[in-house]
Amino acid sequence: MISQSITDHLPAGEPLPIPAGFRAAGVRAGIKESGAPDLAVLVADGDCAAAGVFTTNRIAAAPVQWDRALLPSTKARAVVVNSGNANAATGAQGLADARRTATRAAEVIGCEPGQVLVASTGVIGHQLPMEKVEAGLARALDAAAAGEGAFRAAAGAILTTDTHPKLVARSVEVAGAAVNLLGMAKGAAMIGPNMATMLGFLLTDARVGPADLQAILRDAVDDSFNCISVEGHMSTNDTVLLLASGGVDRPALNGKDLDVFKHLVRDCCADLARMIPEDGEGATHLITIEVEGCADVAEARAIARAVADSPLVKTAIHGADPNWGRIVSAAGYAGVPFEESELSLWLDGVPLYRGGVPLPFDDAAVSGRLRSERDVQIRLALGRGPAKARFWTCDLTAEYVRLNADYTT
Amino acid sequence: MISQSITDHLPAGEPLPIPAGFRAAGVRAGIKESGAPDLAVLVADGDCAAAGVFTTNRIAAAPVQWDRALLPSTKARAVVVNSGNANAATGAQGLADARRTATRAAEVIGCEPGQVLVASTGVIGHQLPMEKVEAGLARALDAAAAGEGAFRAAAGAILTTDTHPKLVARSVEVAGAAVNLLGMAKGAAMIGPNMATMLGFLLTDARVGPADLQAILRDAVDDSFNCISVEGHMSTNDTVLLLASGGVDRPALNGKDLDVFKHLVRDCCADLARMIPEDGEGATHLITIEVEGCADVAEARAIARAVADSPLVKTAIHGADPNWGRIVSAAGYAGVPFEESELSLWLDGVPLYRGGVPLPFDDAAVSGRLRSERDVQIRLALGRGPAKARFWTCDLTAEYVRLNADYTT
Repeated sequence: MISQSITDHLPAGEPLPIPAGFRAAGVRAGIKESGAPDLAVLVADGDCAAAGVFTTNRIAAAPVQWDRALLPSTKARAVVVNSGNANAATGAQGLADARRTATRAAEVIGCEPGQVLVASTGVIGHQLPMEKVEAGLARALDAAAAGEGAFRAAAGAILTTDTHPKLVARSVEVAGAAVNLLGMAKGAAMIGPNMATMLGFLLTDARVGPADLQAILRDAVDDSFNCISVEGHMSTNDTVLLLASGGVDRPALNGKDLDVFKHLVRDCCADLARMIPEDGEGATHLITIEVEGCADVAEARAIARAVADSPLVKTAIHGADPNWGRIVSAAGYAGVPFEESELSLWLDGVPLYRGGVPLPFDDAAVSGRLRSERDVQIRLALGRGPAKARFWTCDLTAEYVRLNADYTT
Repeated sequence: MISQSITDHLPAGEPLPIPAGFRAAGVRAGIKESGAPDLAVLVADGDCAAAGVFTTNRIAAAPVQWDRALLPSTKARAVVVNSGNANAATGAQGLADARRTATRAAEVIGCEPGQVLVASTGVIGHQLPMEKVEAGLARALDAAAAGEGAFRAAAGAILTTDTHPKLVARSVEVAGAAVNLLGMAKGAAMIGPNMATMLGFLLTDARVGPADLQAILRDAVDDSFNCISVEGHMSTNDTVLLLASGGVDRPALNGKDLDVFKHLVRDCCADLARMIPEDGEGATHLITIEVEGCADVAEARAIARAVADSPLVKTAIHGADPNWGRIVSAAGYAGVPFEESELSLWLDGVPLYRGGVPLPFDDAAVSGRLRSERDVQIRLALGRGPAKARFWTCDLTAEYVRLNADYTT
């Protein structure tokens, strides 16, 4: 049913299915000292249904506060995103700047400020350079276009330490008509469970009501962006937005058609989420943690998260060291009251620990596989019930330390 | 009142106040491939009151399971400690080996196996090499002596990646008689809140009942070993034991005298606890985190712990980067429902953030201080109440990654 699935480094030659009714741009506003692109706009031709999921950090960035008050909505018209400055921990001035950004965009677009969503990522605690933001915003809105290149430019302008843009575009046939979904994300560090400094923007031409849209996005995020970790530090700016333009001549989705759309959103969120630890700062391995046999999903996620966030697990994988005791001991402090005798562990499919007893295994072979492969699978099983979870993280390297020991200065 | 306080690298020239009624030894049993000392015994001449506090990890090492079943006790006679092998995640064989170790020691000492406590630290998931353990144990019990050198040797034999022994010895006059307390600890990684791969042994010649002893140790540990972190990974083997020989001609302590003893234990635990992140693997800074103005101690500790465990905070300190947004954002995800507008932050005494608003500060001066000083103070204040907490951690360095990427193999 899904006619296209193009992820990650989208091949330049292949045309993307762009959702109808949107334009985009990415420009260099001078917020980043490096001069790299740092301001993106996503603009809808008409009112959109819109949903959002945000960080639960008590220090919520100004743009998060702004958007939260507006969503879900039936009247969203645009998203303005800047990178290079988080506009977080910036007090009343920060909130005024978020409002001012939305207001400036609304003036150009011809809508109310409350129809413009904003998002920021970058260093915390610095006020936005509003002169640069406003000048960049004017140019971006002027340049906004519906072509593929414009969306690629937007995806590039929201990045910070990411090594490449993260884009996904899919098209699916629903009730005889094509529904297109385009997603972009950024994130490479300050990635903890419950999102991170990760931003994600999803645009679709489906016609879906805001309440359905919110429920679908919440569910998709819980199983994707909330199941990744780079170093477990939850950001102040985490934001995932989903805008549905409703397109022209499109029926409102419901019943099975809505389920198809729901799976489309879930798949796109999962694809984007996985790209984040895959591109984790300094990472050399993508680690997939699967936990099964739990009483409920919360238990499974708690164990997966404890393993994903353990620097000892992450350094062992980096060193191609099958030091599996670090994995089971991390599971042991996740707060789930299991018995040691019901725990089993596989590393890249090799059973290492079964029912609380260590198994003999070929150390050199497992180590060799860890050394040669970028993808690592950790599987943990308990006997408490049918629930399971999947988590993605990356290894911890000296390069991560180097990158983060000298970020603002 | 306290007549001596000697910590850390105890000067070789100064005599330690050794508690009456104990002997010790540390030997090379060959458990460690390096050939370094790896087996210690602490032996009491007569029955001791004994208390213990242990890891809450569901994967509890065999020695932890053994000791837990025995404490608190009025009949403890010895502690046998091995380093180089954790005897954790080792199933029924591991528990049999812990029992066998206690039994062998009891045979030599002339007591019951249930009077011998055991502790292990090292790699998880490998069975103890019992032939080496038993031979080393026999030699250690044979060599056990009451002199200072014997206790120094024991403190050396319990180490793993520590760069130096951690010893504290204090003497205090209670009701006209000297009460001596000697403590030793090990730990440099796999140090999470709620203890870590940290072992601590405290010996005193005070006469204190086991219930008082347990309460005093629990309280002291909560405020010391449970308030340190190297990388937040809680170990399977964490153990702190306190043995009171009661000495000869000593009155049982109660009332104010018991309070004096309680403070002695608290001080010694705090001194030993701080030495652990100070000696954290690869660490270049000891970070003290003070959180005040909380509704209760649990809140204050939750915030302190979130900051202490954040790799982004730890790498920023390592890089002498006053990137304080990482600190307030970590406080924000600690699960404490504070308002941003009540949060203030000081770094090494310099106010950086007050009531949710960033303050101007001399970036270069703060950075210079971080670069030149080994000790860093982070202070966070809220306006929720009178409770406070103090936490110790260390920075995260490329050397930590190097050490942990290649530990077992």
